[in-house]
Amino acid sequence: MSTTSSYAAQSATSLLAPFKIDRRDLGVNDVKIDIEFCGVCHTDIHYAKNEWGSTHYPVVPGHEIIGKVAALGSAVKHLKIGQRVGAGYMAGSCHQCPSCKAHLEQYCLKGFTTIFNSPTKDPGGFAYGGYAKNIVLDQHFVLSVPTGLDPAGAAPLLCAGITTYSPLMHWGVKPGMTVGIIGLGGLGHLGIKLSHAMGAKTIMITTSKTKALDAIKLGADEALISTDKIAMNRMLNQFDFLLNTIPVPHDFNPYLRLLKLDGTMCIVGSIGPTAELNTEPLVYGRRSIAGSIVGSITETQEMLYFCAKHHITANIEIIKMNEINVAFERMLKGDIKYRFVIDMSSLSVT
Amino acid sequence: MSTTSSYAAQSATSLLAPFKIDRRDLGVNDVKIDIEFCGVCHTDIHYAKNEWGSTHYPVVPGHEIIGKVAALGSAVKHLKIGQRVGAGYMAGSCHQCPSCKAHLEQYCLKGFTTIFNSPTKDPGGFAYGGYAKNIVLDQHFVLSVPTGLDPAGAAPLLCAGITTYSPLMHWGVKPGMTVGIIGLGGLGHLGIKLSHAMGAKTIMITTSKTKALDAIKLGADEALISTDKIAMNRMLNQFDFLLNTIPVPHDFNPYLRLLKLDGTMCIVGSIGPTAELNTEPLVYGRRSIAGSIVGSITETQEMLYFCAKHHITANIEIIKMNEINVAFERMLKGDIKYRFVIDMSSLSVT
Repeated sequence: MSTTSSYAAQSATSLLAPFKIDRRDLGVNDVKIDIEFCGVCHTDIHYAKNEWGSTHYPVVPGHEIIGKVAALGSAVKHLKIGQRVGAGYMAGSCHQCPSCKAHLEQYCLKGFTTIFNSPTKDPGGFAYGGYAKNIVLDQHFVLSVPTGLDPAGAAPLLCAGITTYSPLMHWGVKPGMTVGIIGLGGLGHLGIKLSHAMGAKTIMITTSKTKALDAIKLGADEALISTDKIAMNRMLNQFDFLLNTIPVPHDFNPYLRLLKLDGTMCIVGSIGPTAELNTEPLVYGRRSIAGSIVGSITETQEMLYFCAKHHITANIEIIKMNEINVAFERMLKGDIKYRFVIDMSSLSVT
Repeated sequence: MSTTSSYAAQSATSLLAPFKIDRRDLGVNDVKIDIEFCGVCHTDIHYAKNEWGSTHYPVVPGHEIIGKVAALGSAVKHLKIGQRVGAGYMAGSCHQCPSCKAHLEQYCLKGFTTIFNSPTKDPGGFAYGGYAKNIVLDQHFVLSVPTGLDPAGAAPLLCAGITTYSPLMHWGVKPGMTVGIIGLGGLGHLGIKLSHAMGAKTIMITTSKTKALDAIKLGADEALISTDKIAMNRMLNQFDFLLNTIPVPHDFNPYLRLLKLDGTMCIVGSIGPTAELNTEPLVYGRRSIAGSIVGSITETQEMLYFCAKHHITANIEIIKMNEINVAFERMLKGDIKYRFVIDMSSLSVT
């Protein structure tokens, strides 16, 4: 066993605190990564606070990992010691089901293994994530990070980036299309940059005039205030695709009417029970509501190359590890543009 | 003006009763049809009873019309006097918007004109439908009925038939696919026949064991009882496409999990507010919920030829015009396999 220091929540009410954990020894297919940066996603808060009821304590969150290869198992041929790599929300899948065989591990029919809180053969029985000095991962789930991408700004690409890139690509976003990005946060701000880089006319849809202005600075062609009924009516039947990043349950119906015939609104933010659905805008317009979760490993690698080519990274605020609880509080108030990233050199076991 | 006798509701509480109405004089683009048969759709009840709050009395329902050409405007070249024709829910559209230009009049951005209860230049100001001796319609919305199709059994194809055919075609139903038809009524029973004829493995999904057996007789390969949790779990991730014909608000979530990766459930029955949506099955499986309304005129013509080729008509019970109120009552109890069709020769003005 190798040991590392991590930041863990040890109960639903505990703050995250320094903690010594064991990692599994390096297997032949494993990669050990010395973690440089780890993004802070809302999912980390859900798990730290056991809001989904499935947390195994102690839990080490963190699934937007950038680091350098520290050690390689004997079967790992495509990576080199010292190379910059990344890892995201997935750390395993069955590799046997139709989804896995189609290289869509994120839809593994047995359920993909998350990088933390999933059952594992590691000491402790449940995987520890990226709020840590290092991590040992199956090579299949380790991405090459192209040179030229700022490592701290690239960390959120591993979750927020791929979560928005994958549906934009799947629904064929390209020049000539009008795309709406609903909600401006960690996901939404990358959605704007990616949709814009794909060549679509990109419109921010938000309740906030301040966010509307911010979105234009991020590359949105226009902004639409969703509480402005006249503006919303003017945009009926105008959108080819809507990416809905709002992270809480809400009424979908006003947005659906913005879609053209055969348009799709894809949900990537609010997972679980939401508001009552009105089928009328679906029926009168053959519109669809769909969902999407992260993206495949192949797509994630493509996305990293795409971001390097188009100079896309997240807008971030770098914090020290011992500032994480304040960061969680600020995230809950929406007080972050647009992602906290932990500088892992700030983590030391006391 | 030419006059005709019709069956009309004159208020929300009145029974339908014989009534003399005027039809507009034949225009150059018009076709006058002597109506032989008219199917009875649940929408007729909604309008007769003003359940959607938009009925203009007196209302003459009826939008599954089969008859013979009685007169032709001078610009109508593709039809002949005496030829058997049909007409469905649509009687007009703008012909200018992107949907109309794409020959998808059912998604006309100005809203298609319904065959009854829509504003019209006809006497009275609102169109009268097919519970009548004859009707005058724009040639664009008049379909040729192929010989070999039983005229009474063909009437419901003009609404129930096209409403199920259009989404089955749009989502590419073909051999090798597994299709679920949810709900066995006027729409569902035609959905089974059409999906089966398209070569898909067709599975009836119903709460009722009796309906499950009936569905097999209609051509379903299998039936799935939706209240049987073990059977439902066995069928998770098995369906390429689900056609949801349930006419009332209900919980979509148990059905969504039956879809494969990238599968779609299309709503054709319950239009309006429905139950709370859980986005989880959408997100974990990139599944979609969509909707569809009737079908284009081009598709409706194709559907009639398809039905003639595959010997598909609706299972019907022929009634006389003065039995319509009993028919409405029986429909509300689900006591019809699967469509009432009015023999219009039974209508005479008293």
